[in-house]
Formats: sequence, C-alpha cells, structure tokens
Amino acid sequence: MDESWSLIEPEPFDSAALRGWEGLFTQGSGYLHTRGSLEEHLSGAPQNVTYLRRPANVTAEQFPQMKSKWGTFVPGIYGNHPLMGKEMANLPSFLGIAPFIDGERLELETSAIIIHRRALDLRTAVLSRIVRWRTHSGSTVDVTFERFASAARPHLFVQRMTVTCDAAAQIAIHAGIDSDVRTSGYDHAARVSFERVAGDQMRCEFALDTGDQVQIAAWVSLGTAAGETDWQYNDERRAASLSATIACSAGQTIHFEKRSAVTSSFDRQPADLDALLSLDTGFDALLAEHETIWRRRWEGADVIIDGDVESQRTLRLALYHLMRAHPGDNRLAIDPKAYAGDAYRGLYFWDTEMYLLPFFLYTEPERGRMLTDFRIGALDGARKNAATFGYAGARYPWESDADGAEQCPNWQYRDHEVHVTADVVYGLAHAARASDDLGYLTRDAAAVLRETARYWLERIDRRPGDPYPSLLGVMGPDEYAPITSNNAYTNRLVAFALDQASAAAEGDAAREQWIATARTLPIARRADGLVMQCEEFERFAEVDFAALWRDRSQGFASQVSQERLYRSRCLKQADVLLLMMLFPDEFSDEEVRQAWDYYLPYTTHDSSLSPGVHAVIALRLGLMDQAWAFWQRSLTLDLDGGAEEGIHIAAQGMNWQIAVLGFGGLKTAMQADILTLTPRLPDRWARLAFPVLWKGQRAFVEATHSVVTVENRSNRPLEAQVNVFRRRIPAGERVAFEHGRGS
Amino acid sequence: MDESWSLIEPEPFDSAALRGWEGLFTQGSGYLHTRGSLEEHLSGAPQNVTYLRRPANVTAEQFPQMKSKWGTFVPGIYGNHPLMGKEMANLPSFLGIAPFIDGERLELETSAIIIHRRALDLRTAVLSRIVRWRTHSGSTVDVTFERFASAARPHLFVQRMTVTCDAAAQIAIHAGIDSDVRTSGYDHAARVSFERVAGDQMRCEFALDTGDQVQIAAWVSLGTAAGETDWQYNDERRAASLSATIACSAGQTIHFEKRSAVTSSFDRQPADLDALLSLDTGFDALLAEHETIWRRRWEGADVIIDGDVESQRTLRLALYHLMRAHPGDNRLAIDPKAYAGDAYRGLYFWDTEMYLLPFFLYTEPERGRMLTDFRIGALDGARKNAATFGYAGARYPWESDADGAEQCPNWQYRDHEVHVTADVVYGLAHAARASDDLGYLTRDAAAVLRETARYWLERIDRRPGDPYPSLLGVMGPDEYAPITSNNAYTNRLVAFALDQASAAAEGDAAREQWIATARTLPIARRADGLVMQCEEFERFAEVDFAALWRDRSQGFASQVSQERLYRSRCLKQADVLLLMMLFPDEFSDEEVRQAWDYYLPYTTHDSSLSPGVHAVIALRLGLMDQAWAFWQRSLTLDLDGGAEEGIHIAAQGMNWQIAVLGFGGLKTAMQADILTLTPRLPDRWARLAFPVLWKGQRAFVEATHSVVTVENRSNRPLEAQVNVFRRRIPAGERVAFEHGRGS
Repeated sequence: MDESWSLIEPEPFDSAALRGWEGLFTQGSGYLHTRGSLEEHLSGAPQNVTYLRRPANVTAEQFPQMKSKWGTFVPGIYGNHPLMGKEMANLPSFLGIAPFIDGERLELETSAIIIHRRALDLRTAVLSRIVRWRTHSGSTVDVTFERFASAARPHLFVQRMTVTCDAAAQIAIHAGIDSDVRTSGYDHAARVSFERVAGDQMRCEFALDTGDQVQIAAWVSLGTAAGETDWQYNDERRAASLSATIACSAGQTIHFEKRSAVTSSFDRQPADLDALLSLDTGFDALLAEHETIWRRRWEGADVIIDGDVESQRTLRLALYHLMRAHPGDNRLAIDPKAYAGDAYRGLYFWDTEMYLLPFFLYTEPERGRMLTDFRIGALDGARKNAATFGYAGARYPWESDADGAEQCPNWQYRDHEVHVTADVVYGLAHAARASDDLGYLTRDAAAVLRETARYWLERIDRRPGDPYPSLLGVMGPDEYAPITSNNAYTNRLVAFALDQASAAAEGDAAREQWIATARTLPIARRADGLVMQCEEFERFAEVDFAALWRDRSQGFASQVSQERLYRSRCLKQADVLLLMMLFPDEFSDEEVRQAWDYYLPYTTHDSSLSPGVHAVIALRLGLMDQAWAFWQRSLTLDLDGGAEEGIHIAAQGMNWQIAVLGFGGLKTAMQADILTLTPRLPDRWARLAFPVLWKGQRAFVEATHSVVTVENRSNRPLEAQVNVFRRRIPAGERVAFEHGRGS
Repeated sequence: MDESWSLIEPEPFDSAALRGWEGLFTQGSGYLHTRGSLEEHLSGAPQNVTYLRRPANVTAEQFPQMKSKWGTFVPGIYGNHPLMGKEMANLPSFLGIAPFIDGERLELETSAIIIHRRALDLRTAVLSRIVRWRTHSGSTVDVTFERFASAARPHLFVQRMTVTCDAAAQIAIHAGIDSDVRTSGYDHAARVSFERVAGDQMRCEFALDTGDQVQIAAWVSLGTAAGETDWQYNDERRAASLSATIACSAGQTIHFEKRSAVTSSFDRQPADLDALLSLDTGFDALLAEHETIWRRRWEGADVIIDGDVESQRTLRLALYHLMRAHPGDNRLAIDPKAYAGDAYRGLYFWDTEMYLLPFFLYTEPERGRMLTDFRIGALDGARKNAATFGYAGARYPWESDADGAEQCPNWQYRDHEVHVTADVVYGLAHAARASDDLGYLTRDAAAVLRETARYWLERIDRRPGDPYPSLLGVMGPDEYAPITSNNAYTNRLVAFALDQASAAAEGDAAREQWIATARTLPIARRADGLVMQCEEFERFAEVDFAALWRDRSQGFASQVSQERLYRSRCLKQADVLLLMMLFPDEFSDEEVRQAWDYYLPYTTHDSSLSPGVHAVIALRLGLMDQAWAFWQRSLTLDLDGGAEEGIHIAAQGMNWQIAVLGFGGLKTAMQADILTLTPRLPDRWARLAFPVLWKGQRAFVEATHSVVTVENRSNRPLEAQVNVFRRRIPAGERVAFEHGRGS
C-alpha cells in the first residue's frame, strides 16, 4: 500500500475519533455524498436526536457530542429550518450492512475485535475495511468491506462485503435504508414511505418540508452456490431492510453486494433507478470504470511532493475532496464543508470564488466555469436580495442556496459582509482570463457585471467634506470588525468589479461613473504608508492576548466575548494580507512586510481561511520558516478531529494554492499573461511537480532546488517565464530553466 | 361625567380599534394586571393562536393582527421562550362573563347593538360599560358591567353585571376561567387543572414551563329572590365555567357578581384565596376601600392643567398607568409596556431609572425607592452577567428579569448597550438625593456602586497614544449607531457612576483610580464645540430622508434596511439631548442650541422615548411651538391604537417630566439642592398645578401666566426658589412669587 496515497485510520478503533474519520472518509460522486460512517453502525449513537440549532457564529458554535454523525447529501436538496433558513438536508442513509454470526452482531465497541483496518485509497476513492473478530462462541470471523460512489455513474453507490468464519456458522446479513435521521438536530421529513420493489430491492420515497423529494433504491445480492436467496423484508416506518441468513461451512467465504441508487426532484432528468440497479455489470467492472475517471482526474491535478510523504498524502487528501465535492452541475457550487457535514448548512459563500476556484481553473477549467456559471444563474436571487435591502441592481447573498437566495441567519454577516458581491465578479474575471475567453465577461457575465455595478453605485456613500466615495458599514474578510469604513480589501475588490463592469456598460454615463468611482474608492493608509484594514482599525482597543487567550488549542473567540472581539484589534483572519495576495503587484515587498509585521500579532487565525494566506505571503517575503509553519497548519486542519463537522474545503483549496501558487510560485491569470513561475521549495522537499492548464494549454511543471522544467503538453508553442528567464516552449517539448535562486 | 377624568371609547363599537382600547383600559393592582378585554369576548378572536416569535427590534416588529388580545399578568411569573428567553407569561383570564337572553349570546359584532358605552374612570380606576341590544325575538336588553382590580386587596379582582330585559325571558350567565391563552404566540402551560371547590367557586391551577405556578379562583353570585342558585360546572380541560339560568319577568333586573383571586409561587406569602372569596364585604364596600386608596394616590400625584381638557385627561391617563403599573414589591420594576402587553416580554430596561423613577420620587418616594431597591436586589444577576462577558464586578443586563438575569435575545443591544449599568447608579443617586438620604448610597447601594465601578475599570480601554481612557464598542441611547466609540451620554453617565462609587470605595487605590477615570473619560467635541454623540458620528453617511422615508405615519426603520441605519447619520432617539437634559448646568444654552440644531434633522423619533426629551429641551431653549408639538406627540402616543401592544410607559413617565420638570420647570434633586422652579406655561393653559414631595416635604405648586405660588404642606419651613426669587416658606403657608417671565 502506497502510504502517499492512503489515508489510514489508526488501530485500535477509537469511537471518540470516529466523527473525525467520518468527515475525512467522506465519499462522493459530486451528485451524491456520504460521510464515512461504519456500515454496521455503532450502538449508542442514535441518528434521530432532535435539538434546536440557533443562529450563531459557526466558528465558535459547539455541536452536540455524538459518537457518530451520518451524512447523506444530494446538493440542491434542502430542508426548511425554522430558525436557520433553508439548509441542505441530511437524507436517508443507504450505507447500512450488518453481519451477524450465529446471532451475534459485529459491533466495534463491544465485540472482541482483533483487527480493524480502515483506509481510503485516494487514487481510486475507494474506502475499504478489514475486520477480524472473535465471537462469543470462539469463532474467528474475517469481514471486509469496500465501497465507492461511482464517478462513472454519479447516481450509483456500490458496496461489497465478504465474510469468512473459521467454524461452521449461521451468517446473517441485514442491509437497510434508514430515514430516521436529522439535519443538525432537525427533522426535515415531511413524508416517508418504503416499498419492496422486488425480492432483492427496496425503495424509499422521502419528501422534505421544502417540497423537495428524493428516491433511494437499494439492491442486494449474495454470491452463494445455493441459487436464489430468500430475502426477508422488514419495514419499520422510518427504516426498512432486507436480510438473509445462510448456513456456512468452516472457512467458507460469502460475498455480499449492495448497490444504492438515488434520484431527486432537483435532477434535470430523473435517474432510472431500476435500470441502474439491474445493470449486468459486475462489481469489478463498475470499479474499473470508476477508477478510470479518477485516474484521469489525478493526471490533471496531482501535485507531487518528493521527500515529504506526510505533506504529499495530506495534500492529496485535499485534492481528493476538492474533486469529490465538485457537483458537476452549474446550478450548484461547493459549500464550506464540502458536502461532508451540515455545519455550514450546505450553502455557498465567497470561498467558492476566492479559495476553491483557482484549483479548478488550472486543472479542470470546465469545472471551474461551472462554479462561475452558478453565479450567473443566481443573478435573479441577487437582484431580489438587493431589493430586500432597498437597492437597485444585484447583491449576492452571504450564504446562498442554489436559487441564489440569502439564507444567512446572522445579520452582521448578512447585512455587512458585502464583499462577496465583488468576489463573484473577481471569480468571473478569473475564469475568463484563465481560459483566455474574455468574451465570457461581456457575453455570459455581462448582466452580473452591470447589475452588481448598479448596486455598488447605490451602496457607496459620499460623506460631506470627503473628495472621495466611501463604502461604510462593511465587514471585510476579518469578521471580528463587524461594521467598518472603507475596508481596504472590499474597496479594492469593488473597484475591480466596477472596472470590469465598465466593459459591459450600456451607455457612456454609467461607464464613466463606474470608472470614476473605481478610481477614487480609497485604500486608507497610515501616515507611514501602512495599509489600513479599515479607517477605524487604529482606534480599536489593544487586547491582552496573553491574559485572555490561555487555551491556545481553542480559538480566541471561545475565550472572550464577541463584544470584546468587536471593539479590539484582533483579526479573525487575513484581511489586508489577502488583498496583497490577490493583487501582489500593487504592493511593494516593503509594504507587504509592513502589513505582515503590523497585522500578524493581532491575527488569531480563528478562521481556517487564515493560515493559508499567511503561508503564501510568507513565501513572497522569503520567510521560509513561517511559511512552513502556516503551510503545515493549513494542511493539517482536518486531521485529528478537524473534520468532525465536515471538510474545511476552502482551506483545502488554499492548500493547493500554497503548493502551486506559493511553493510553485505560479502567477495566476489575474496576475500574468503568460505562464509565470517562481518556485520556492522548502529545504526538505526534493521535488515539486504539478500539471497546470494555462489558457487552454496543458503543461507540466517540475521544480527541484537546482532546476525547473516546464513541459508543454499542448499542440502549440507555450510562452513561459521562470524567475527572470522567458522561453517559448515548442509543442510537446520540455525545457529546463536555471533556478533563479541558485543563479 | 367629568371628561377630564374619563377615558371613553367612542360609539359605535369598532372591533378594529379594540386592541388599542384593551391596552388603554388595562387595570391593575400592581400585583395583578388585566388588559381591557370584553367580558363576553368577541367571536372570531381566538386567544390560542400559536406562532413563533423571533428575536427582532421590537420597535420595527410586526405583531399578528388579532381583533382582541387578552392579557393577564402577575409580575414575576415567567415562561421560558425557546428563542426569546424568559418572558412574562400571559396567564389564564378570569374576566369572562357572558349573558344569554333566551339562548342568544351578547356579541358586539353580530348582535343588534343600540348603545355601547365603555369608559375608564381614571379617578377610581373602575372600568364600566353600558350595553343595550335588541334580541332576535325583539326584546330590548340592558346590560351594565363594572370592574376593578382592588387597590386595597391586590390579589382580588371584582366584577359586577346587571341585566334587564323588557320582556319575560330566560337569562343565562356563563362565567369562566380560560387558560387556553398564549404569550406572544407561545404556550407556556406545563400543567393545567380545574376544580370546582364549592357550588359557586372554581379554581384553576396553572403551572408554567419555568416551574412557576399560579392559582386562580373565582366566585360567582346571583342576587335573586329565589335563594340558592343552581350553578352548572363545566370543565373543558383548558377552560372551566359556572353557569346558571333564571326565568325573569319583564323589566326585572338581575344582579350578578364575580370575584377572582390570584396567588402565585412568586408571592412571599401565598394569598388565602378562600378567605378572599368568602369575604362578607359587599361590592360597594370593596369599591369604597379601593377608591380611598386611589383618592390618596391622586392627591399626591395629580397634575392639574386648566384650559386644556384634552391634555389634562391624557396626562391623567399617563399618571393612572404609572400608579397602576407599579408592582409595590422591591423584587420587581415596571416593564416598557407597563404589564399591559407582552411585546417587551415583561422585562426591565433602563427606562426604569431614566424615565419612570422621577415621577415616583417626587410623588410617592417609597415607591421610587422600591424600584431602585430592585436593582440592589438584582446585583447577583449583574455579577453573573459581568462574568459571562469576561469581566469582574457587576454589569446590569439590558433586559432584566426579576432575578437580574439577562434575557435580551439580540446581541447588539445585549452586548453593546452598556449604559444601563451607569443608569442604575444614576437612579440610586437620584433616589438618595430626592429623599435627602445620602446614606442610601454608602449603605444599601454601596456594593452596587463598587461592583459596577470594578466592571467599568475592566471595560474601559486605553488606546495606544491616547492620553485619556475610552469606552469603545458602545451603543448609546440612540440604537441606530450600534458599535461606537466614546458615546457622550454613556461616558458622562459612567463618569458619574465612578464618581459616586468613589464614596463607597474600599481602599484609596480604587477610589483614586475611579476618580481619575471619571475625570478623564472624554466627551468628544467637534472643532466648533459641538458635542459629538460619538467619535464616529461625522464619519457616518448622510441619508436622503425625503427619498427614503415616504410614509411618515410609520417609523423610518420600517422603510430602510437596518444596514443603512447602522452606517448613516440617523438617530432613533435623543442621545446628546438626553445627556443635556440630565446635566443641564454642564452645557450652556448655546451648546444645547447647537446640539439641537445639529441632531434634530437627523432624528427619526422611531423610539417613543424621543419626543419627550425634545419637548423638555425645547422648553429650555424657549422654543415654545416645538415644545408644544413634541409634548403633544409624546402625550398622545398611546391613543388611536398606540396602546395595542401595551402602554408606552416610559413615554408616560416622560410626560410627567415634561409637565412638571418642563412646563413646571422643577429642577430635580440631581440638579438643585432646594425646591427650584422656572415655570414656562403654554399660552393656551390658564394654570398648571401639581404636588411635589421635595426631600420629605410636601409642597403644592400652582403656576399661572402671572404668578407662581408654592404651598408648604409640611410641618417645617421649606426653602424654595422660583425663577430668580428665593424664599423660605413657613410650614403650612403659601407664598406667591412674581412670574419671572412677566417681570
């Protein structure tokens, strides 16, 4: 087993760590996602615990401690929460397979477990387990499980189990669908019904309180010599199962298979569940077509790190989740937990554009474009949202559902974190430039550009006496400064958006007004040139971190009141530094260093979005030790329980950016016209290599401490610059550049 | 009927106006309060409508439109709302009395009503009705109702009805207790049981979801010649009733009486309901003892306005509700709706100290002292609240329950509106000075002074580079500026509180630190001297009121988003002007005028607390027309539907202040050592007269346009100053002062 490709749960099994592994082991076809829960489940971990979740800052929110938390998600399928608004619903689980030996059920916490190995093969996206257990009667039983969400058939989920007992035994198998689940403690089921549709098939119809509907069907099969299995069907109102018992001889292996298929009211075309479940294709063939797709994905995306297997594996875990989570549907985006948990309610934030999009744009741009197309499709929602706040034009919601409607239940973010509307335009421009299709902006995205510009012109104030316009009452990326004036990040992004919009303006008056506003929106600076996060920053209180932040294993916000955060110089996350990461050429190294020195001591990194930005900026400043520390911090966020509530997918998207844009030193298409690289490898790495799709041309970059090579995998010449050297690389050829640092 | 003492509902009856009259006609003994609902109720106005109220700005909140909203409140009895926190519970109603003539029920909307007159006699606090209706069978029926919450026996509520039919008829009477009620749409009942405890008595046991409990018993009696009535008892699980039918001859009058008695788990001693209901005292005797108490109250409080019967009656309505609402229990205060509605959830705000207290301190100081004693008793809650926010000492909650625990569900008020903690100290000092008992501060209130000072010292920041301390992240009285720096009102009140605390300090170090901080907390001023509401005010946006605020019959907040309010120069209510009202001698007339001219155009008066302050300041500035307009606006707030959700009692407290401190020109004991008056009468008033209790001495002031007389009703000489003239008035004597304006 290649440890750079395998994520392995340590032995012995520890139920206290299960939720973290459920997050990490989430599998998905894009269409359908399931957390890495145990097939036979764990007793004492009920999934129908009801509680009322209240609007709160998710970063500081405490979720009820459960040993296991199932998650079955079909993006686009929502429930209506009475307090939180619309949220992605946790759907009935179809994972259940429980083996019984002479009536004794496999149960990891109480059975006499000899071996329990569980591993996710990142290369194939297959989750497998090996369990050996001794029964009360003294037999030794080996059980293996494999499962995958078919990348080739996104509505299909495939499972296989083998059971071998060293003594003759009655082996029973129960395989079910369980709808008695909750979404963050809430039951969204409006109507549930089960039906046995064939001897070896059952089906669940699940209607939600939004009117959304899901159908889940499962087919079971026992590979035995004894012909047809006599399946018993049991319908318990909120759950159903098919079960069978076989008399096995000592050492005999039984093969069990379960396939589940899902369709929903969000599907453009309902999937034919019968057809999917009656496929003649066997398990191995299904697996092979699935693996083919994953192999192709990795070819276009894998980032290779030689000399650091831990970083290598963890980065691959990041890319696995990025690829797994992408819904492959331009009516959807990726939520902050990557459909691996319900904490962020399956809604879409600014992370889409600023943290996730680059990975897709430079590895599989059609999928990047789907994410930006999603925002174009959500324009009507943004129009309604602007109107709700009393403005013309379009204002994108802070927490968007698939319709583009605002679902954020906390007013401080919803009302004041307006930068998302500019971030959307940045994402559209990035998609256009990365694919060398500027027409995307004046064609597909023109209405978004115009409508958001109209919103900004109404939202921007002109204070008496000021010769410049101002954006007031704004929360920037740093969410610990809730209502500020002229946040630098927001103003720069809005100026960018207005500038882009000018190309799509209908009429000179609007165009000129947008350009003039873009040119005059201020970036506040201190007398010594320091870029101010907002006008007020230096009027905030100093905070005694040493006295107030005793337990550094928990966020600062867990140890002080929100009221103190809101009046103090403390940052939840990078703000000015993110601006400088996005617009690197607008700030000198000295200015970036000044901002680094000033803001870093105030930055709590309470948000997972923060460390990665710091890693990239540290690399620009040549602060290799700090860059390494922030890289490791960002990379490992989801390990050791970090993924309990799902994957921090924005950080994972940023981890690709650290690796490729930071260590690899790739300039984005927002920053350079030709492929431009300035690799900066950590000493402990021997080689960093990655594919990149630059404006339609495939290339492959390899960097060592001595040389950088760029292979042009396209069929036309590729202009490239590495450090100060610029070359034209013929089609299909590979060019080595002297390493700038070495020369 | 004296129209200056009678509040009369206009004829014909209009169910659309009923809720407003239910608020205005609220009766109460202090212990027990009931809204002015109809005895026979209105069909099509169910009281068990369930809905989920969510945290929101109450000023802008829309309440469901119901024709009638019952309210039965015992201060100190709470329910637990899942979203809103603890709230005063609406208790079972005992008002119900319905007459039937030959099976036809009195029903104001569908019966053929010939006369319907309802009036509240403010002098006696008795609500009475006369109804004449024609039955389907052609009879004419006269019904009268009278009712009062006994001021002499606060646990007792007394009702009487007479019925006369001009033809022989079967007259039936149903009298009930109905527990199927909601509090703002929520059912707080945990257990309800009914019992018939005697032939003519029933009892309801009502337990709430907090564990609080209430017992309500009712006794009925029919004064007929025919001996014992045969009462039928009917228990409908959430309601019960006693009913009887009598055959009456034409013109015969039947007399019916109902008495209800209430006791609760909050009572120091449970009231003996049996004893209360088996009193031998008849209706007239109960009424007489009740009226005696109200007569005494009015003697000490009535403000007489000659020449303006409308103002006279409406001001008396204000005083009626102030006196009615006072719970007479130092474990309680008065909520913003004066126990006449559940909109503000029966909790206690800063209104207690700044708006209500003066009326009591200068008319019935023992009752004023109860209100400030309440805050002393709530100190433990304030300590816990400080700890919750991470501070030492005591921080009073924005919305306090009887335990002093914070129940505010909106973080912007709860976290940032800290001035209440200083307002509490201002109230304590006011009570001490008004009763000439400064020992109150160093004795009873010492711990409050010290503990709140400790809190302030931790809450106050010292910004790098500033030579002075700052209070940051503060919402002042103006709730449209949520998180500001050095709010002038708050800083001045905190400085006052620290200064008061210094007299109670234990140790020189603390004392000196408190004094030094009090001396240096800044009041920000513009270059031209304008007192700035907060440092940021001039950095807020201008707002185009003409364009955005089209419907002036509704508040500004109903027509723009909160986000705009929070970044714009718009005041919900007086802020700097309130500071200037409280500390008049610290600001010159020019400074006050400057602040008036600057802030008034930005002030929306969306809060009922605003117009009254403007009336007082206008009087100081000699702006008589504006003073009159603001007085009328504040005075009439609760008329014409304004009282639907209860009485705006803070405004009513301020109306007394406008009359006595404004028009009467009385300086408070915070502002003057001796009784000091500068009356400023509107032209249309012939005379303004009022009693005042000045540091234990009763006086009676009468002002006309030509002369001001002060009668010393105490048994020792009274120092008094009217305008520039100072006199020593012998005990029992009356002195006439030339009117300053006239001379």
